Amino acid sequence: MILDTINAANDIKKVPESELPALAGEIREFLIEHISRTGGHLASNLGTVELTMAMHLVFNLPEDKIIWDVGHQAYTHKLLTGRKNDFDTLRQYGGMSGFPKRRESECDSFDTGHSSTSISAGLGYVKARDLSGGKNYVVSVIGDGALTGGLALEALNNAAENKSNFIIVLNDNNMSISPNVGAISTLLTGIRADSAYRDINDNVKSSLKKIPVYGEKLVSQVQRAKSGIKQLLLPGMRFEDMGITYLGPVDGHDLNKLRKMFNIAKKMNSSVIVHVITEKGRGYEPARLRPEKFHGVAPFDVVTGKAYAAAKSTYTDVFSRKICEMAERDDKIVAITASMASGTGLSRFQKRFPDRFFDVGIAEEHAVTFAAGLAAGGYKPYFAVYSSFLQRGFDEILHDVCIQKLPVVFMIDRAGIVGSDGETHQGIFDYSYLNIIPGMTVMAPKNRLELMDMMEFANSYDGPVAIRYPRGAVSDIFPEHKEEISYAKAEYIYSGEGTAIVTVGASIEEGAKVYEALKEKGENPSLVNARFENPIDVQLIKELAVGHNKLLTIEENIATGGFGMSVLRCVNENNLSMKVINVALPDEYLTHGSIAKLKEISGFTTEDILRRL
Amino acid sequence: MILDTINAANDIKKVPESELPALAGEIREFLIEHISRTGGHLASNLGTVELTMAMHLVFNLPEDKIIWDVGHQAYTHKLLTGRKNDFDTLRQYGGMSGFPKRRESECDSFDTGHSSTSISAGLGYVKARDLSGGKNYVVSVIGDGALTGGLALEALNNAAENKSNFIIVLNDNNMSISPNVGAISTLLTGIRADSAYRDINDNVKSSLKKIPVYGEKLVSQVQRAKSGIKQLLLPGMRFEDMGITYLGPVDGHDLNKLRKMFNIAKKMNSSVIVHVITEKGRGYEPARLRPEKFHGVAPFDVVTGKAYAAAKSTYTDVFSRKICEMAERDDKIVAITASMASGTGLSRFQKRFPDRFFDVGIAEEHAVTFAAGLAAGGYKPYFAVYSSFLQRGFDEILHDVCIQKLPVVFMIDRAGIVGSDGETHQGIFDYSYLNIIPGMTVMAPKNRLELMDMMEFANSYDGPVAIRYPRGAVSDIFPEHKEEISYAKAEYIYSGEGTAIVTVGASIEEGAKVYEALKEKGENPSLVNARFENPIDVQLIKELAVGHNKLLTIEENIATGGFGMSVLRCVNENNLSMKVINVALPDEYLTHGSIAKLKEISGFTTEDILRRL
Repeated sequence: MILDTINAANDIKKVPESELPALAGEIREFLIEHISRTGGHLASNLGTVELTMAMHLVFNLPEDKIIWDVGHQAYTHKLLTGRKNDFDTLRQYGGMSGFPKRRESECDSFDTGHSSTSISAGLGYVKARDLSGGKNYVVSVIGDGALTGGLALEALNNAAENKSNFIIVLNDNNMSISPNVGAISTLLTGIRADSAYRDINDNVKSSLKKIPVYGEKLVSQVQRAKSGIKQLLLPGMRFEDMGITYLGPVDGHDLNKLRKMFNIAKKMNSSVIVHVITEKGRGYEPARLRPEKFHGVAPFDVVTGKAYAAAKSTYTDVFSRKICEMAERDDKIVAITASMASGTGLSRFQKRFPDRFFDVGIAEEHAVTFAAGLAAGGYKPYFAVYSSFLQRGFDEILHDVCIQKLPVVFMIDRAGIVGSDGETHQGIFDYSYLNIIPGMTVMAPKNRLELMDMMEFANSYDGPVAIRYPRGAVSDIFPEHKEEISYAKAEYIYSGEGTAIVTVGASIEEGAKVYEALKEKGENPSLVNARFENPIDVQLIKELAVGHNKLLTIEENIATGGFGMSVLRCVNENNLSMKVINVALPDEYLTHGSIAKLKEISGFTTEDILRRL
Repeated sequence: MILDTINAANDIKKVPESELPALAGEIREFLIEHISRTGGHLASNLGTVELTMAMHLVFNLPEDKIIWDVGHQAYTHKLLTGRKNDFDTLRQYGGMSGFPKRRESECDSFDTGHSSTSISAGLGYVKARDLSGGKNYVVSVIGDGALTGGLALEALNNAAENKSNFIIVLNDNNMSISPNVGAISTLLTGIRADSAYRDINDNVKSSLKKIPVYGEKLVSQVQRAKSGIKQLLLPGMRFEDMGITYLGPVDGHDLNKLRKMFNIAKKMNSSVIVHVITEKGRGYEPARLRPEKFHGVAPFDVVTGKAYAAAKSTYTDVFSRKICEMAERDDKIVAITASMASGTGLSRFQKRFPDRFFDVGIAEEHAVTFAAGLAAGGYKPYFAVYSSFLQRGFDEILHDVCIQKLPVVFMIDRAGIVGSDGETHQGIFDYSYLNIIPGMTVMAPKNRLELMDMMEFANSYDGPVAIRYPRGAVSDIFPEHKEEISYAKAEYIYSGEGTAIVTVGASIEEGAKVYEALKEKGENPSLVNARFENPIDVQLIKELAVGHNKLLTIEENIATGGFGMSVLRCVNENNLSMKVINVALPDEYLTHGSIAKLKEISGFTTEDILRRL
């Protein structure tokens, strides 16, 4: 195995030229074999094998800085920087992260996870280098999907003014997770189509000649290489209008062309975009044909491409069906996604109600304010979004939706602990950041049925509402408890005395276990499903103060600003004599690992909770 | 006065054509006269007089929707929709807002305040109209500065796909509040320069012919008007590449041309940008020559342009001088603004250290992640920003700065109650949203000297820090208390017993008054300056529990998630026997008015606070 000779950064430079294609093959086999066992991101990583190899051949790590936008496509980078043996622990607790982490390797120059950050971070590195007189290269690798994010567009606008070398690799596979939308996508599609038949021409030469010192030499090189490197530069490309040099497009699976292009890019005294066309899932047919399915995968059979574990019904499924059912009756319902139609379950809605479905691209800020506009125009928008991605829309929820009390419904999926994606993806802040916002109503269902009831409630409520539900299989706990949803009213599961256990959403699972354990000890506690995380049921808290001396809250959110704090405040302000015990996640970032393991280390076991009573 | 005949929307349509120029003059006089008395936004409103008149002549309100980006330029719109008599109460408590408010008029179709929201909101209105079969027009008016905001760019990307009429008026005065930066600005400057000598040509005609039904007719109209309407359409404009029709540029002070252009824009079946060139401060020389100074003004003398009240030394000034002094010694210090060099006090730094100063445009998200990149590259970035605008960077602080514990310093100006700008600009959420973020240190100085000490401390601290200070004049309270800043340590002002008063930052003023009042009653309370809002001084709270039975916290932030809640949690978790009383702002949006009045209605008077003890 050639791959066995690569145990540290820059080892790839010792591999004989002739063996590089074989190395690419070995890397693909390695990735397919390992990810099929551990799960992880597959399609995107198969698409960036040669791109990563070319960068590692041309640049020197760790002096040169490579910043991976989103970061789930950096597996080959991890392989080429001495982390081959860590792939067995990929995304497991204590094991290797699925994203770049500075703590993992000095070759990981910036932690990523959310989309569209790499140009901003890279430009920061560029300015730091220039101020300190450094000579290293800075390379930001961004997908075409991520380029619709406002953060990336703000950064491009700013990068256009830069007068020193800054290489932006546009990794263009014509999809984010869902197929892309919008003007930028149209533009890139145009370039791809155009360029297939284009050749080096005079404009290219005059562009090259502008490069100081090396310009003339390059022109002659390029002329010699004419038949080899097709469309080195695409004149008239709009990035040029912004003041950013454009190189490309180049076949992202052709190591030679990639290296030549990067070597030219190194010579530029400006921000330069290298437009690289890659294919998601390259080299593994099931992933190539269905890259969306092979975006993030659970362990699967390599031969058939089928996941080992049977898919369980998820909250996403429940939402997916229910929103369609409701939309059938209520033609004011519209649905919005930020490039996650499949992940959020909106694909079904998209098929049934194409005119009432809006995929705005990776653009959470716009999604929120666009929803506000739709609501002001008399519609009932449902924005389905992952908890950690909605953080991007914080100001827009506060400033555009809630000041005007507009009836936008936020369907917050992947809330609470999400597991193997780690720090950047945990949905453990939403209670806190939504509670801050005046007029925001936040609900969380205890089970599958209650999610549907809450959606009906939200649809009838004339104001901003968020419904928060976890990743993974639905719960059918306490199906007999299905009292009608009433604003800011909790629901008794068991009424007792001594200790009152009040849980929000999926934390009813932990609450029920604590309840049973206390029963076994001969106590007769109460168990309450809060339903409303904000506003809390003040009347209930007052009621509980009669007959209970302890009030235990459980929520899958950090402690600060969460449900428990609201309850404590209520107890304090009303001078109630109950000891409040808040079980919540520590006020820390939560690493990757299985959800069960992460709950265990966060003090969510029945034993840990009982110890606090 | 012609203006006296305008008392409701559409009244302007009854004004004889020949009197319209005089009306424009009257409006300018009215604005100058009123704003010189009440204070308010001047330069931007003087720039949009004819633009607003033209829109009101061409469109029908309230059926047609005009959405003003930012919104401080909507005074003429208020004048033309029956709110003339409310100008005496402009921005005063209970009076007319300085921004569009749906509650004020049905002609205000969307509340704005922060930058770059109007295209998103407008597109929402457009989709709502199309779904419901409506025929009204939707017009978003956005400045060229606001176009650098990621939210607006996300929206433009999305609007390009729209196949129905959506008019985006680009109000181009070549500045936001500071002069603009970046690629978009360069692009617009190019168009302005080019177009001065351009005439209608064949490309324009072929563009016009594409317009359904009306196309051919328009071409002949345009040909007739050839000498009158210069550069009706600018071929090759890059918005066209995005799929957005471009019309312009047009002189924003020429009522006829503006109306013609809007009438053409109404015929398009797509998103269409009407590029309007306006001049800030038009018609009032002091404002025209120094639009930055006349952006938002206090009452001033019309003849001299000088403010009546002498400018007091502000926290902004203190920051402005101190950062320069520190940067003189420490060449790792760099400073970032999002288009607010003057407002944040960074203009001085910009002059002295131009290479270490970065104005990224109205782009708070990028500013934060760019700062993270600079910090990762070994520099110490200070991002100076208004509290409410930093809300835009919430995810970036959480995801790009704090996960990696990067030493970025956030200098948060205009924190707490800001007064007359109202809901959208109050800095009353920052404690809460920053507290959520693991690893974020938040400080607030009690006085001028402490701000400088905290900056020195932040500079030596290796991690993310925020320092929060209010709008307005500095305080010199308790100058003798200047113990060295120590991490997460509070400072005793007076040590006593019974009631402990713990205040954060500027709230020491209220704390001192309560202290005096209690002394007069014969009590001997303690007064503590928290210094660190997060993390709180747990040791201190435990100490206070000995000898105090009441702990009063005072902070100028909403209650939820604030300092008081952290203190209450600490008392609860440590089973301390003190009654905690939290004085904080209600969990509501806070309207416009004087800071004193807003404090009064928020329960911040000494009497109100004493009543709660």
